[in-house]
Amino acid sequence: MNRKSVAVDMDNVIADIETNWIASYNAEFGANVTSEDLIGKPENDAFPDPIAAKTLIYKPGFFRNAPVIEGAQEALRKLQEHFDIYIVSAAMEFPNSLAEKYDWLAEHFPFIHWKNIVFCGDKSVIATDYLIDDHLKNLDFCKGMPILFTAGHNVNVKKYRRVNSWSEVLELFEGELANS
Amino acid sequence: MNRKSVAVDMDNVIADIETNWIASYNAEFGANVTSEDLIGKPENDAFPDPIAAKTLIYKPGFFRNAPVIEGAQEALRKLQEHFDIYIVSAAMEFPNSLAEKYDWLAEHFPFIHWKNIVFCGDKSVIATDYLIDDHLKNLDFCKGMPILFTAGHNVNVKKYRRVNSWSEVLELFEGELANS
Repeated sequence: MNRKSVAVDMDNVIADIETNWIASYNAEFGANVTSEDLIGKPENDAFPDPIAAKTLIYKPGFFRNAPVIEGAQEALRKLQEHFDIYIVSAAMEFPNSLAEKYDWLAEHFPFIHWKNIVFCGDKSVIATDYLIDDHLKNLDFCKGMPILFTAGHNVNVKKYRRVNSWSEVLELFEGELANS
Repeated sequence: MNRKSVAVDMDNVIADIETNWIASYNAEFGANVTSEDLIGKPENDAFPDPIAAKTLIYKPGFFRNAPVIEGAQEALRKLQEHFDIYIVSAAMEFPNSLAEKYDWLAEHFPFIHWKNIVFCGDKSVIATDYLIDDHLKNLDFCKGMPILFTAGHNVNVKKYRRVNSWSEVLELFEGELANS
């Protein structure tokens, strides 16, 4: 049987951009934003000064220094035994992120081959059997099974199979393997 | 009717990497290689010293300074009237090329939106209705109709519909529109 393919988003799925963003915002503007403050709000509206928050994304190091989301490394190593894993990031919106994201992956996910990395704009041309992502703008147009990875901004979304952590991703795929 | 999508490779399809490579090789090693010398040879074997030739790809500016392939700009503008055009480059093999390719596209193809740019490794996860490419390694696994764009290294390939220039691409797609 052919191995099935899984596309995995980067920001807020394997790379903890939110933690980085909050720390950077608080340091830059002397604020006290916490991750709880962002819950249920669209990303572009979440910070007290959304325009100032957006400027931070363009600063060198914003993507390069993000922590890894808990459990992502171990889970992707395990999933790789049975699935073709592709990292698919809508990096093209922030061209400064291209090199940083490549280097970040090389450091934290050295077991992902460059052939399996995709930096794109619109993910609707990506054809994998599954897409794990935190954004409806990607999941709504994906060709495979959409899987919603919980992030502060999407807690009120009622569409799609939701996973709250990488251990829940592993459970879901164990089920998929058992049913295939 | 839904617009159909066309993936377009960069190197040797819209960006004249070969001309750049030959000039760079001759300047660096005092050689007299011409484009005729490369005809019918695999890219990795085409230069007198293939290993030395490969080192040139990693030099800053190699991708940024490539000329545009004749007719590519006008043809993609025209095709955009009827098709969704995606630039899909296997840039991940040369991470130094990511920023250079982005900037090159912004200069020469400003009418291509960032949402329509994909930098990847393996193109087998790209699902467009057509793929215009000079490499069998991409065309062999594409999900849509493969179109072989002539380059020195592929002149002996007998597979797939071949186009020798951007005016031949336009002719082909006029036929596709008429038949759809």
